[in-house]
Amino acid sequence: MISLSRRGFASDNNATVHPDVLAALAAANVGHVGGYGHDSYTERAQALFAQHFGEQARAFLVFNGTGANILCLRAACRRWEGVICAPTAHLNVDECSAPEAMAGVKLLVAEAAHGKLTPEAVERMIVRVGDEHAVQPRLLSISQCTELGTVYTVDELRALADVVHARGLLLHVDGARLANAAVALGASLREITTDAGVDLVSFGGTKNGLLGGEAVVLLNPELVPGFEYLRKQSMQLASKMRYVAAQFEALLSGDLWRRCAAHANAMAAALAREVEGLPGLTITHPVQANAVFAVIAPEVTAALQERFPFYVWDEHTGEVRWMCSWDTTEDDVREFAAALRDALA
Amino acid sequence: MISLSRRGFASDNNATVHPDVLAALAAANVGHVGGYGHDSYTERAQALFAQHFGEQARAFLVFNGTGANILCLRAACRRWEGVICAPTAHLNVDECSAPEAMAGVKLLVAEAAHGKLTPEAVERMIVRVGDEHAVQPRLLSISQCTELGTVYTVDELRALADVVHARGLLLHVDGARLANAAVALGASLREITTDAGVDLVSFGGTKNGLLGGEAVVLLNPELVPGFEYLRKQSMQLASKMRYVAAQFEALLSGDLWRRCAAHANAMAAALAREVEGLPGLTITHPVQANAVFAVIAPEVTAALQERFPFYVWDEHTGEVRWMCSWDTTEDDVREFAAALRDALA
Amino acid sequence: MISLSRRGFASDNNATVHPDVLAALAAANVGHVGGYGHDSYTERAQALFAQHFGEQARAFLVFNGTGANILCLRAACRRWEGVICAPTAHLNVDECSAPEAMAGVKLLVAEAAHGKLTPEAVERMIVRVGDEHAVQPRLLSISQCTELGTVYTVDELRALADVVHARGLLLHVDGARLANAAVALGASLREITTDAGVDLVSFGGTKNGLLGGEAVVLLNPELVPGFEYLRKQSMQLASKMRYVAAQFEALLSGDLWRRCAAHANAMAAALAREVEGLPGLTITHPVQANAVFAVIAPEVTAALQERFPFYVWDEHTGEVRWMCSWDTTEDDVREFAAALRDALA
Amino acid sequence: MISLSRRGFASDNNATVHPDVLAALAAANVGHVGGYGHDSYTERAQALFAQHFGEQARAFLVFNGTGANILCLRAACRRWEGVICAPTAHLNVDECSAPEAMAGVKLLVAEAAHGKLTPEAVERMIVRVGDEHAVQPRLLSISQCTELGTVYTVDELRALADVVHARGLLLHVDGARLANAAVALGASLREITTDAGVDLVSFGGTKNGLLGGEAVVLLNPELVPGFEYLRKQSMQLASKMRYVAAQFEALLSGDLWRRCAAHANAMAAALAREVEGLPGLTITHPVQANAVFAVIAPEVTAALQERFPFYVWDEHTGEVRWMCSWDTTEDDVREFAAALRDALA
Repeated sequence: MISLSRRGFASDNNATVHPDVLAALAAANVGHVGGYGHDSYTERAQALFAQHFGEQARAFLVFNGTGANILCLRAACRRWEGVICAPTAHLNVDECSAPEAMAGVKLLVAEAAHGKLTPEAVERMIVRVGDEHAVQPRLLSISQCTELGTVYTVDELRALADVVHARGLLLHVDGARLANAAVALGASLREITTDAGVDLVSFGGTKNGLLGGEAVVLLNPELVPGFEYLRKQSMQLASKMRYVAAQFEALLSGDLWRRCAAHANAMAAALAREVEGLPGLTITHPVQANAVFAVIAPEVTAALQERFPFYVWDEHTGEVRWMCSWDTTEDDVREFAAALRDALA
Repeated sequence: MISLSRRGFASDNNATVHPDVLAALAAANVGHVGGYGHDSYTERAQALFAQHFGEQARAFLVFNGTGANILCLRAACRRWEGVICAPTAHLNVDECSAPEAMAGVKLLVAEAAHGKLTPEAVERMIVRVGDEHAVQPRLLSISQCTELGTVYTVDELRALADVVHARGLLLHVDGARLANAAVALGASLREITTDAGVDLVSFGGTKNGLLGGEAVVLLNPELVPGFEYLRKQSMQLASKMRYVAAQFEALLSGDLWRRCAAHANAMAAALAREVEGLPGLTITHPVQANAVFAVIAPEVTAALQERFPFYVWDEHTGEVRWMCSWDTTEDDVREFAAALRDALA
Repeated sequence: MISLSRRGFASDNNATVHPDVLAALAAANVGHVGGYGHDSYTERAQALFAQHFGEQARAFLVFNGTGANILCLRAACRRWEGVICAPTAHLNVDECSAPEAMAGVKLLVAEAAHGKLTPEAVERMIVRVGDEHAVQPRLLSISQCTELGTVYTVDELRALADVVHARGLLLHVDGARLANAAVALGASLREITTDAGVDLVSFGGTKNGLLGGEAVVLLNPELVPGFEYLRKQSMQLASKMRYVAAQFEALLSGDLWRRCAAHANAMAAALAREVEGLPGLTITHPVQANAVFAVIAPEVTAALQERFPFYVWDEHTGEVRWMCSWDTTEDDVREFAAALRDALA
Repeated sequence: MISLSRRGFASDNNATVHPDVLAALAAANVGHVGGYGHDSYTERAQALFAQHFGEQARAFLVFNGTGANILCLRAACRRWEGVICAPTAHLNVDECSAPEAMAGVKLLVAEAAHGKLTPEAVERMIVRVGDEHAVQPRLLSISQCTELGTVYTVDELRALADVVHARGLLLHVDGARLANAAVALGASLREITTDAGVDLVSFGGTKNGLLGGEAVVLLNPELVPGFEYLRKQSMQLASKMRYVAAQFEALLSGDLWRRCAAHANAMAAALAREVEGLPGLTITHPVQANAVFAVIAPEVTAALQERFPFYVWDEHTGEVRWMCSWDTTEDDVREFAAALRDALA
């Protein structure tokens, strides 16, 4: 059990809820409203998603990221269709085989560097189309930001969308940290999704200051029918939906989503600046969002973990992950960098 | 869309969050803690469940009732096993075929009066044991309170447990409103579960004053291995778990769970007293918890629904459901009963 | 274990293979041909199905009846859709929950007399359309002949087709004994399927003289895409397909299918004539195809089963089933009827 | 469509049925016997499997190889467990995602050379045991012979069994061509399965002279309960089982299984001898059973395929597969080798 007296760098889901979000929950706590999303909070949240992603966008609020991702797979794939993804995809490594067990979907794992897929790598997986012995690729799922803290540029997104659309596939973005990507790219949510050719998005809130809430945003709703039924059947329909919707209203009605993400990104950049070049430390992936990955010696890791929680990413190489969140402070970064310098020395 | 300026009788999930629960969320919003339940809030919630259900009890916090129920089915049943339930079971009618689609489980629907199963009705479903052509019954799932507002007595529970245990099955309680049942029976949670022979419980919080949170409580954990994996895979593992756990801490550390349920039950009893015997109205099920079911003329329903939201339960018979919640007031009941009297006149 | 020195009345799957079918297997045993249906035998079988069911029909040869039925469910239903059927449907009682476990489909069990559904009973199940909490009916599956030996008339079929098509559903026929029904009705296979509005058929061969082979016949192939993939994925694609196809060629190229079924039906009719009216025996369903159902005393059953294998259908009522097959002889019927008379006396 | 006037080298499932097998089918075609395996043919087949694999072995006859494999996965893995296999595993590439869609199982693909896994490669996949976010490895599935025509030695098998057993996993052998492996190793079926630590086997008959029939052989039946139910539910229970059992009786009661496999292996060895060293041809995998893999120029392939059917295995490298079967003749090999020499020249 990781129980913390201070903020660490283990995960952005170890962070607190932004006060504005808690305030929105309190403000929503008045009178009776319809259940299951038949309420004005959900109506307003839906309007905000349309504002951020485009008029045709339809948002379905759900509980967590696994739920959002699995729903996207169940909605996009027919029984004989599969999903192309990166080896590092959360879908592939961190969802206890939910894609296979709950969606019945095979993952077709393409090669990726720094967690990012290329059109060429994707195209190599679109084979044996029409061969009844082979699963038929239907969806490309990418993570934005990736699980390694890197970010696809808008051009890269568009190139992937072009490839998959040309071959009759759809493009899904696992956007548990989509806000961090938008900030990193200096772009709107629409520019990095709808305008880039993305078809459906798992949009994360929990890691960006919410108490608990994610959304599936369908950018071409007519391509994925039945989503209402799937959400209910997939155990992702909240009865007291207003309390999920109110969180998203707080996040999306102003620029809270952007401020929280920008701060987390800035903290990671600051941390990278502080530690880059230290002897005995190698940064392993470009620091483009709110994570820093580095290789350090196991004894340095051990010493450091006594004071700051964070995860070892790869036992074999000694790679570690330092994740910043909306509530990481400059002091947190400075203290941690100082401790790291000591431990390396 | 049902958007309400006042409290109605549509559902206990249309109600607000109890202020103590909101306060607990605010109090939990300090510093970083481990994700996915590796935090002291979850540890304390687990201890409270053990206190209420018995030392051997293990609680797994989840998002919603469908999630809790489907997890219980997935955990208890092997691939060729089925579940006996009542025709009115939420599992059977209101979860968009999640038992079949997400757990692969066949429901064996037994006869029930007022939503309650008898040992005889259950026993009649335990047939063709050992016949490879037939699904093998593994679990009896009952609802307590039932979906029709009735309550199994402790003796009735024990009789059901005895039957199913004698035949090698387990007993599951869909306890979305278990607190209301405990209050109705003047019993502890333990007396109506562990002590009565129940094996696993879906324990509801959302309908009883929480913002959103349910728990699966395993009373014989060794009989249902792998629950941690199943919860994650079934999309029911909260990353910021402390905010689910803190709600349960508020509910279970004192007597909030009992006060909320007792109030809801009392309001239903008051409503029943007010309206029973009115000409043109027939109460259809014993009022034992927080729901009143009655048959009234369709035009009475229509007139009444203009002012108070509630559901028609059966279009053919004109049966309606009036559900009370922790925040229903005596004035709400009085006003509604008065309006009903007017409409019936 | 039922090991027989003589022919009994247990099941038409206890029967032998028609000699013409064995001869066709031997004749097909020459040279190499492509696997998985890429051979001229399969091509000719497909042409024969088109001849019998209509030009648009596409046949997919499979191994067994459960396979054919489950494939139809998997092909016709999306993840949130369900299937209406009779309580007696093989799908519902004799496939070890394959519909739920392998297709993820909920069965919506309608009332039926003598195994036959009516338009009214079906229509009562098509409710809550558009309600995300409820499974959405997509397919009506009927058995022709029914499991109780009764037969839908062409008018009855058309009435069912009209109801389901009007509501956006498809009509599936579990035709494990479709040939017997066609003979009973004096109709062609096309008249009782395509022309009556049926959309997809599980067409039985094994019970009608084949060694082992069934076919799914899609009468509106464009409504159920992806069948090739589903057959492979559902473990129903034979590698040495020519040996399944050659059986169907033997069955369908002449009138073997009709002769075998007509004989089985005639034997059941003869048996019914012989025993009807005997004191202590009540025939329980109209004898319209190759099965006779009757109630006799348990001790009569016991005595009779010492000499002739057959099944008790309902332990509580004492109902038994006597099934005739293509190789049942008039002597078999006479001997059995005589033994029955003795036992009843 | 591949329609052949002569025997080619496309697949051992393009071959005919051995005359002894057809004769056994004819001999079994007498009188009525119980369905679904309740017959003396199945009893004798079971005894033969016990004779070949050891007394504790229990055989379940099924229709095809995909069925056998998927059944093994469904029987061995609980809902959260996964299967380690080679990239080339039939399970992974040629079953239209049946492992994922029908068993809900994730495949954990380990590195392999020439289709064979090593203990080291397997051990690298057994990670994150106890981590609820990760699928838990439960089964190692290897192919013997591999899909690349190579064979594990008995020592290699035992080493794999030791590794997986030490870690609490089971060892499955996809033995679609197990007979060819036994012949290649000069060993009995028992020596390469039970005695080597294998837990369950998909034993192939169809590629080795049968009309259609495979078997799952449980070598530790108590480890995989419920197989009867799973076979029925998974659409793999033949109603007229005697005709599957009789084939296996023909195959296993004498040495037909060994003669057929030995001949196919000998033909592949002869082919390899004839062509090895030809300029423009490189044999790519050790020829240890009944397949020869080679790289030749695409135009050579094209010229050759005009006269002899065979498959291109890898479009990018130009690798082709030549598969020999029980009915390949020495003349077939000579003619083919001559044509190949011509085409290469």
